[in-house]
Amino acid sequence: MESGKNNLTLRKLGIDSYTENIVYMRFDCPLCLSEGFKAETRVVVRSGEKSIIATLNVVTSELLYPNEASLSDIGFMRLGATDGDSVQITHLEPIESLASVRSKIYGNELGADAYFSIIHDISSGKYSDIQLSAFVTACSGEGRMKSEEIVSLTRAMISTGEIIKWPEKIIADKHCIGGIPGNRTTPIVVPIIASAGLCIPKTSSRAITSPAGTADVMEVMTKVDLGIEEMQKVVAMEGGCLAWGGAVKLSPADDILIQVERALNVDSEAQLIASVLSKKAAAGATHAVIDIPVGPTAKVRTWESAQLLKKEFENVGIAIDINLKVVFTDGSQPIGRGIGPSLEAMDILSVLRNESNVPQDLRKKSIEIAAEILELTGKALPGKGHVLAEELLHTGKAYQKFIAICNAQGYFNEPVFAPFSNDLISEKTGTVTMINNRILSLAAKLAGAPLDKEAGIVFNVHLGVKVHKGDSILRLYSSSEGTLKYAFDYLNKHPEFLEIK
Amino acid sequence: MESGKNNLTLRKLGIDSYTENIVYMRFDCPLCLSEGFKAETRVVVRSGEKSIIATLNVVTSELLYPNEASLSDIGFMRLGATDGDSVQITHLEPIESLASVRSKIYGNELGADAYFSIIHDISSGKYSDIQLSAFVTACSGEGRMKSEEIVSLTRAMISTGEIIKWPEKIIADKHCIGGIPGNRTTPIVVPIIASAGLCIPKTSSRAITSPAGTADVMEVMTKVDLGIEEMQKVVAMEGGCLAWGGAVKLSPADDILIQVERALNVDSEAQLIASVLSKKAAAGATHAVIDIPVGPTAKVRTWESAQLLKKEFENVGIAIDINLKVVFTDGSQPIGRGIGPSLEAMDILSVLRNESNVPQDLRKKSIEIAAEILELTGKALPGKGHVLAEELLHTGKAYQKFIAICNAQGYFNEPVFAPFSNDLISEKTGTVTMINNRILSLAAKLAGAPLDKEAGIVFNVHLGVKVHKGDSILRLYSSSEGTLKYAFDYLNKHPEFLEIK
Repeated sequence: MESGKNNLTLRKLGIDSYTENIVYMRFDCPLCLSEGFKAETRVVVRSGEKSIIATLNVVTSELLYPNEASLSDIGFMRLGATDGDSVQITHLEPIESLASVRSKIYGNELGADAYFSIIHDISSGKYSDIQLSAFVTACSGEGRMKSEEIVSLTRAMISTGEIIKWPEKIIADKHCIGGIPGNRTTPIVVPIIASAGLCIPKTSSRAITSPAGTADVMEVMTKVDLGIEEMQKVVAMEGGCLAWGGAVKLSPADDILIQVERALNVDSEAQLIASVLSKKAAAGATHAVIDIPVGPTAKVRTWESAQLLKKEFENVGIAIDINLKVVFTDGSQPIGRGIGPSLEAMDILSVLRNESNVPQDLRKKSIEIAAEILELTGKALPGKGHVLAEELLHTGKAYQKFIAICNAQGYFNEPVFAPFSNDLISEKTGTVTMINNRILSLAAKLAGAPLDKEAGIVFNVHLGVKVHKGDSILRLYSSSEGTLKYAFDYLNKHPEFLEIK
Repeated sequence: MESGKNNLTLRKLGIDSYTENIVYMRFDCPLCLSEGFKAETRVVVRSGEKSIIATLNVVTSELLYPNEASLSDIGFMRLGATDGDSVQITHLEPIESLASVRSKIYGNELGADAYFSIIHDISSGKYSDIQLSAFVTACSGEGRMKSEEIVSLTRAMISTGEIIKWPEKIIADKHCIGGIPGNRTTPIVVPIIASAGLCIPKTSSRAITSPAGTADVMEVMTKVDLGIEEMQKVVAMEGGCLAWGGAVKLSPADDILIQVERALNVDSEAQLIASVLSKKAAAGATHAVIDIPVGPTAKVRTWESAQLLKKEFENVGIAIDINLKVVFTDGSQPIGRGIGPSLEAMDILSVLRNESNVPQDLRKKSIEIAAEILELTGKALPGKGHVLAEELLHTGKAYQKFIAICNAQGYFNEPVFAPFSNDLISEKTGTVTMINNRILSLAAKLAGAPLDKEAGIVFNVHLGVKVHKGDSILRLYSSSEGTLKYAFDYLNKHPEFLEIK
């Protein structure tokens, strides 16, 4: 390591490889020759005290000098390095925990130690995409993970992240497992709960397989990447916050696994429970309401699997000492009108501002969830949570609290529409009898959501509603014309997303 | 597509990304802006009649002009494009077969149509590494694939590749499922069988999880990447060949899946059977002997799983009309002395040349397998195959045939040793009671095998052999000093690879 030939000088090429650390080295650089590095070798790149693990791409041209190396943009960021810095590059030791992953692939049960090693290695960035995908897949599928394994996985995730301490005795939290487009209750529930005097330091994730996560929606209106200290300051002032969990690194392994789950469009039961509850535990929650929407095209499709999931949630809740209430809600159709960050933000503001044209379903569901939290924490007597939540919303106290929280987090911005849009027109008259959430979600994603904040769908109909020929069923939005056309073509090819009889 | 703004000009950057097609485009290129392309978007790149699917990396610097694009080296090769060519880049349509992969991840049984679509999309290069890894993993593990699914998977693989026709009625073949270092019987069996007057057009694979595949070993001595016509010419002349299966594209999907299995060090039962038998069927085999080594650290560890695997092999054999004989062999220790392409080639020549110091275990096993083929095809009466095989080897007829086959394939080269080596010395005296194949294999791979042809291990001991303090247990070879040290360190850290009592 001390020898001069191990030092290469960084030169930025400016290549954005998304989340993967790539290191670029010349085929004839002294290290490639002496160490036998080849394209796809996984190596450790050190600069001063910091190091990252990266995949090697070999430069076969004059793009770099033999004594130079480069990194993809994310690699530069994660290493905290700049042009001209000196780096040392060494072999990555064989990853011992991969033996456990292989064992899991072959269907064996793993112990707590195995999950700890796997999750520790993942959070250190040692796993390649192929290895991450294999781990995610091996833990998916009915019966693949025993209850005890889900507990071990959750504990392993908690142990690799930070844990936030709060002065309050009761810390409320909520989580919806998702799968329903537009189901954005959190930004309404949090200000209701905080204005009731409870402490609710809410962290949310970005979208995994959906067109928008709560963090994506909140980011339209305020700053969400708060560090732990910033978050504590906001909560001390307002009793609640609406932050992005990824920025506080509550469960760094989970943040990495979620990228792969997104690419696969897979969200397994065990990963889901471990992901949700490890973040609740790390955020210091003592009481949490878990909302499971059930419906034929929701994430959970039958009452049977909903009950199973509830049991596993409660089992882990007991193991990690969080007071849980699992509730089932209607997952048969989108909630609210907007699908996509900006469009969902507009729905939220409409409810909080008590506008005349408010999406009633979103309002009703938010009050339900808020009521459950108020009762679970003892803030309201059993059966009285509903009235209290309704009052806090109706009087505008929740709205004032929402704006106060946004301002405490940095600022409040009004959401706007995307520049390009197109209406999908009904070709017949009749009653809406079925809505396929999955096709709608995919269309919103093809339009650019969640990365394109203003992309998505405004959905104009609901189950049981009468539609006339020529009515707009939905309006698709996108920030680029090509992407809008692409998503619109997809919807036209899948008319089965809506049944009108 | 016709519009000028969709055309970008290729400029070679010279980046070797191993097997992944990467396309590089400027963040502000007209296509990125109009189509909403982002880093990690999967796109179709067209040049004239040809197209490939590639993953986008976004150039955030002046490395390219906005009207330019580049590809990784493998992308240029696969597209058959050069500097200055004009390309069109479009969105990849959503891959419908991924819904079946997700269903498999969740543990469901898939039908023949689903496997056909998946394998067709894989062989067209539509799947990303993450998606391939998920498919491989979802098909692994005991009980994950029903017998009927293995048949469907095999048929799908056969249907996406080429099938070779032969004038002979009986086409012999053999396959060893591997897992035993140095177990290189094929280059000995093929010339025995061919010199008996049978037709044996053998194609072999490169290493999946081992330090050497038969194709890697043969490549040390002759040309193995023969096209179908070259192969037919060699077989017409000599009655047999020893070619690389990947070059004749007998099962293109399998060639892609094997890359992922190698990265995961996983070789599942269903993929294994489909891989082996799809290639036998495509190669036109009518009779085949399948060799399953069984031992505590072999790929198959118990007689129970060996029996299960045999049953599945036979089931698929009947379904695709190949006359199979499955035999179990000793998998408790390495066969021969060399582990790694060049070192194994030396063992093979030693057996074929009837040298005095011949590795007896390799000789014995090769004769056994050859005898099974001679009897299965009716070339020898039951129980008489052994004598015939022994005679063909002993008289030098098999060696003459081997050299004739090599020459017909292009040339014969004598294998040589790597420039760097190091002996591992025994620290005690006693009898060898256990050898861990897996640790030995990994050490040979860390030394550079199979890509570094001369890297590997010469293993000097066997089970039951008396070792004295100061004896060399093995000699490790590598073409680079750094890699040699790395592999040697690994062995020193894992003394449990050998038990001396």
